Amino acid sequence: MIRFFEKDPYAPIQYSYEVSRILYHKKSRFQDIMVFENPHFGRILVLDGVVQMTERDELFYHEMLTHVVMSSHPDPKRVIVIGGGDGGAVREVLKHKSVEKVYFIEIDEEVINVSKKYFPSVAGCIKDKRVEIKCMDGAEFVKNSKPDIDIVIVDSTDIVGFARSLFTKKFFTSIKNCLTENGMYASLSESLHFHKEIVIEVQQTMKSVFPVVDLYTVPIATYAGNWWSFSIGSKKLDPREIRAKNKFRTKYYSDEIHKISFMPKGMYKRLLDNKLDW
Amino acid sequence: MIRFFEKDPYAPIQYSYEVSRILYHKKSRFQDIMVFENPHFGRILVLDGVVQMTERDELFYHEMLTHVVMSSHPDPKRVIVIGGGDGGAVREVLKHKSVEKVYFIEIDEEVINVSKKYFPSVAGCIKDKRVEIKCMDGAEFVKNSKPDIDIVIVDSTDIVGFARSLFTKKFFTSIKNCLTENGMYASLSESLHFHKEIVIEVQQTMKSVFPVVDLYTVPIATYAGNWWSFSIGSKKLDPREIRAKNKFRTKYYSDEIHKISFMPKGMYKRLLDNKLDW
Repeated sequence: MIRFFEKDPYAPIQYSYEVSRILYHKKSRFQDIMVFENPHFGRILVLDGVVQMTERDELFYHEMLTHVVMSSHPDPKRVIVIGGGDGGAVREVLKHKSVEKVYFIEIDEEVINVSKKYFPSVAGCIKDKRVEIKCMDGAEFVKNSKPDIDIVIVDSTDIVGFARSLFTKKFFTSIKNCLTENGMYASLSESLHFHKEIVIEVQQTMKSVFPVVDLYTVPIATYAGNWWSFSIGSKKLDPREIRAKNKFRTKYYSDEIHKISFMPKGMYKRLLDNKLDW
Repeated sequence: MIRFFEKDPYAPIQYSYEVSRILYHKKSRFQDIMVFENPHFGRILVLDGVVQMTERDELFYHEMLTHVVMSSHPDPKRVIVIGGGDGGAVREVLKHKSVEKVYFIEIDEEVINVSKKYFPSVAGCIKDKRVEIKCMDGAEFVKNSKPDIDIVIVDSTDIVGFARSLFTKKFFTSIKNCLTENGMYASLSESLHFHKEIVIEVQQTMKSVFPVVDLYTVPIATYAGNWWSFSIGSKKLDPREIRAKNKFRTKYYSDEIHKISFMPKGMYKRLLDNKLDW
């Protein structure tokens, strides 16, 4: 049997997958890109040796990254998605009828091309005429945006890699400056099992910029440490509250999942005080 | 580097761990038992090639297996723990001041001996005079118990192995017959990511015996599929309600975790109707 061994120096468990077939494997200007097929997960996208997405379980990550913040906003019209070259986050954003414009900012054009070819159910949506694709650095794009954006979503690779610049105070400040009064920002923030210190660091940095900051989670089998966290920075609105008016179709996300996915307040306080002992 | 590769034929991702030192490795009458040391997780207990417990993260499993059902009962006095030879479930049960008697039924005495020696922080508690250890088949013990038990907890190995007999209608009926009027039963029921069909099967079988059945989850990094589920069968009481009077010290479980850990009702219905599409 041929196996793929994930190459994540920061994960204390190494994951490996059966490989039925390698569909694509090339280096882009920015990273090593591979697509292979697995009997259980279907097609799997790998960047620099780390699994980014599988056909079977991408729904958990993309729905939760997107709908929590989109549903907390009363009327999200203009959205920026940074990273997420596979198109999954954009697909979910477009389910919200209020959306008029999505700036889709992916630094590596090759990831978009590979996804269009090998993951049509994920990337198909980016042909939508509300989507404007720009292959450039997300930090640059946000810095030069006018303050007319309702939601910014960051769907980057792991924080402990070349996405580091998307988790700085400088970047968070640029995001805040391009948001409207009810504006909100959501991003992955790593595993509470394996990278609790990074989660706390991201949260503390966000808190130095945004008046409202919060944290929610979802278990994802294919990401190291699996107890995946997302961080929200908001200029005013409490993201625990659901304000979306229209229904949309999802497989995991729902109003009830929205409510239980946020870290309970007592535990959240202990996390930020670094008093969770594991 | 020396690595341990988990041998779980039912997991679509294979986990592997760095091995600093092998502390124990022998076959008992029932299974292959190994203890090794890992830089991140500390000591790890492996049965028949599958990780059962690590020093660092056993708290998630043991606290959640035990305290949800124990805290839903107004006054648990007499408890049976089946399996869990490491002693972790018994340790947590003993934190409840109401407890007068714990029958600790482990089929493999060697697991108890190994845990006493290599995991004293887990197994130390079983010296408590309220604990009566019996090395025998849990199904046999329950069948012959008088109906004076408040809580039964099953802490077995994976369902798809030699623990299969602990998930049958016959066994659930024996449990129900030994429970008092407010009696409740809790058990692991595998991963919602990897073994949804097994979760549904266990739930349906429980429903054919117990008037009240429910499901809750916790993400555990070291169990395949990680989104770990537990099933509760209850003769009368709703396990979502907390009735415990005394406080006890935990690292993860709390009243607020109790509430959010249950699967939201809409999603739970869709699970049982096999309409969750992943």
